[in-house]
Amino acid sequence: MRVALKIAYDGGAFFGHQRQPDRRTVEGECLAALRAAKILRDPREAFFRSASRTDRGVSAIGNVIAFNTSFAPRAVVGAFNDRARDVWGWAIAEVPDAFHPRHALERWYRYHLFTDLSLPTLRRAAALFVGEHDFNSFTSDPAPGPITINRIGVSRAGRAILIDIRAGSFRRGMVRRIVSAMARCARGDILEEEIRAALNGRRRDFGIVRPEPLFLMDVLYSVPMRVILVPKIRDVLHSLESETELRVRFLATVQAAVRAAP
Amino acid sequence: MRVALKIAYDGGAFFGHQRQPDRRTVEGECLAALRAAKILRDPREAFFRSASRTDRGVSAIGNVIAFNTSFAPRAVVGAFNDRARDVWGWAIAEVPDAFHPRHALERWYRYHLFTDLSLPTLRRAAALFVGEHDFNSFTSDPAPGPITINRIGVSRAGRAILIDIRAGSFRRGMVRRIVSAMARCARGDILEEEIRAALNGRRRDFGIVRPEPLFLMDVLYSVPMRVILVPKIRDVLHSLESETELRVRFLATVQAAVRAAP
Repeated sequence: MRVALKIAYDGGAFFGHQRQPDRRTVEGECLAALRAAKILRDPREAFFRSASRTDRGVSAIGNVIAFNTSFAPRAVVGAFNDRARDVWGWAIAEVPDAFHPRHALERWYRYHLFTDLSLPTLRRAAALFVGEHDFNSFTSDPAPGPITINRIGVSRAGRAILIDIRAGSFRRGMVRRIVSAMARCARGDILEEEIRAALNGRRRDFGIVRPEPLFLMDVLYSVPMRVILVPKIRDVLHSLESETELRVRFLATVQAAVRAAP
Repeated sequence: MRVALKIAYDGGAFFGHQRQPDRRTVEGECLAALRAAKILRDPREAFFRSASRTDRGVSAIGNVIAFNTSFAPRAVVGAFNDRARDVWGWAIAEVPDAFHPRHALERWYRYHLFTDLSLPTLRRAAALFVGEHDFNSFTSDPAPGPITINRIGVSRAGRAILIDIRAGSFRRGMVRRIVSAMARCARGDILEEEIRAALNGRRRDFGIVRPEPLFLMDVLYSVPMRVILVPKIRDVLHSLESETELRVRFLATVQAAVRAAP
């Protein structure tokens, strides 16, 4: 049987996604957990594949891996989470034998901007990218053929501006290069006309924003995935909650100490 | 001239406090920064000393280091922060030549508990420890002689219970062993009587809580320290704010995704 497993991970815990000999990577950790739990033996035999190879530093809420196994879906989730560290499997689907997670209906990325920029200006810049364009100015890995962006949402959440980008597929570095161009345009460093020209094939480099604020939110398929919350995941979320609260308190306490200055 | 520099650091970034050859430690990072900035040359010559050697994983808001230097106090803060990573100097004082930061009026530690316990019960347990007692059941490093705890505060802040402990000096692991005993007493695992007996010299081991939720809040001296906020520190606090917010958002997004389950 072939299954697709939806995974979340904190990009800060890994040296990127793709397997590397001496580095802790997301794929490496997933495979080690799957092997240790005996969910699969040989990755090649099990036709192990990932939906998206996120860059180093990028986190995922819903990346997807797929593999063949003799385990029942619910048992996969439990056994995987028993072994994996810093990666959490939280939804699963049985999929056809030929299923390759790269062939998705849509991918959804979210970038968090922590500079104060005008939302209407960012939205105007965002609109330039929506639709079918030549994105070779917006990737570290140019290739022939256009790409279609389905939608870009710009919204505010607390101190962050969220930029939600959806497309069937992305090229390497594409989200971070689009966001860099949008932010520079909103700041007035570059003109909308320059972005338009680049999207029509005139090569330009508008820079790239840092990877940590980027989350791969979800990868969508025609098969629905079933959420399965094993106790381990509840515990992990709880301990993540404490850790996060500790970070918040550390910062607040430093700031309070520093501000209490006469 | 001799100066005392107040430093904050995130315990998670270091392998403990005390210098070790191949490990990143708080003292090691401070000394490397002081040397690189030419604030001091030889640590022994400069009579470099720390107020408290926090355990691995423990963070500080206000630990204190002292050393001799030819730099003016304000220049020390700027040059130190230019070089140090994950340690921030934020207040300084000129001190007498014989000043040793270990000889403090009071040290203040704060522990964050993330389990829900009754505050009145915790306060009753806390009261047992206040005053002069034999703390050899509450340290990994027993030594003759009593110790005096000045005050223990128990309060709630969001999801955390804050336990604030103040004493002139502490022995190794003491705060975390006291908190462990308080929590076990509040949970009903041990009786107040058992703690009282231990504080009267009957050796017992009530366990130890994990180090990450412990902050060394401040070390007090008769000399007042002047807060000096160099631009670097403002930037660091700002980027720490973004990082912290990212952690908060990562957690909230995972939880929202997981909870959105049908």
